[in-house]
Amino acid sequence: MGRPRTPLLDRERITTTALELIDEQGDFSVPQIARRLGAQTGSVYHHVDGRDGIVELLRERVASAMDVAALDVRPWDAALEGWARSYRAAFAAHPRTIPLLMTSPVRAPRVLEQYERAVTVLREAGFAAAEVMPLLIALENLVLGSALDLAAPEAMWELAEGTPTPRLAEALAAVGEGRADRAFEVGLTAFLAHARALRAAGD
Amino acid sequence: MGRPRTPLLDRERITTTALELIDEQGDFSVPQIARRLGAQTGSVYHHVDGRDGIVELLRERVASAMDVAALDVRPWDAALEGWARSYRAAFAAHPRTIPLLMTSPVRAPRVLEQYERAVTVLREAGFAAAEVMPLLIALENLVLGSALDLAAPEAMWELAEGTPTPRLAEALAAVGEGRADRAFEVGLTAFLAHARALRAAGD
Repeated sequence: MGRPRTPLLDRERITTTALELIDEQGDFSVPQIARRLGAQTGSVYHHVDGRDGIVELLRERVASAMDVAALDVRPWDAALEGWARSYRAAFAAHPRTIPLLMTSPVRAPRVLEQYERAVTVLREAGFAAAEVMPLLIALENLVLGSALDLAAPEAMWELAEGTPTPRLAEALAAVGEGRADRAFEVGLTAFLAHARALRAAGD
Repeated sequence: MGRPRTPLLDRERITTTALELIDEQGDFSVPQIARRLGAQTGSVYHHVDGRDGIVELLRERVASAMDVAALDVRPWDAALEGWARSYRAAFAAHPRTIPLLMTSPVRAPRVLEQYERAVTVLREAGFAAAEVMPLLIALENLVLGSALDLAAPEAMWELAEGTPTPRLAEALAAVGEGRADRAFEVGLTAFLAHARALRAAGD
């Protein structure tokens, strides 16, 4: 008998399995990962730094779909816009990771490096150090809120018979399809206009 | 033996138990609710319209903490601002309901009625029917993204030894405490300024 060609366990496979579990059920446990990979729970712990380590591997995996090169574009507002669009697309592919990743501290080196680059874009554009994190977090809030909204049903409001909510019915009929994308554009346009106004006021 | 003074099952108690389960573990199941209330799973189904019915009871419960009277304030932008602040506070108390409620269709009559009032504020202010839902959804995305962020640790970025991310370290030191609140203010200010500009352009 030769050695198996694919190792039962490695960080890639553990991460992939954790992501599958979250996509399916909104969370994961280490014993569930072990069961799917036909391994012992203790063996999984040999490969990762506990459950928190798996969360950070997930963060790197989801973030790896983002276009980091967007942050090399200039001017700064085009850089932020491109980053925000690719950020939303990456998380829209795995919306159920959002609550988990938003509420665990960021330790993954490649993700911290991405924040370093985003901070650098704003500092080089002339924003004060104290302005930077509120701006970046506000942008993340709208990006991640909107990525969650992409996982919502297209018919999100189910009106009752006899329409006791006629103006809501009219507004929903008027917006038609693609409401999630249009709402994201409103939020992103508002954010960028405000950031430009802040920057202009700082000069 | 008299009758028990508190019925084992009613919609209030089922909703409270579902909310406790979500606060603890991010989701609920009907058998879990039954177990906590010492009842049969089938008995729970006698009181509610399936799992979806419980989701709608949860939506009404969380939304009942919102200040609906904020929508009676004028001018329209003050109404939206007050509504957004109370919306964020209500969901910040139960952040783990956010992914569930954002991805299930809204059927709860009292919640639909709240949307009707929000739509009415914007229509009476002169917004076109097609503009209203993208604006309201953009506001919800920032409110709910920010409510999730309130559930994040205050120290959200754990920088590595030797700080390979010096500008991120500087930006984090400069923002100090209360980053989540400051980011929400940036997002809300940006949204309201953009909405006012849209309204002014429409005249």
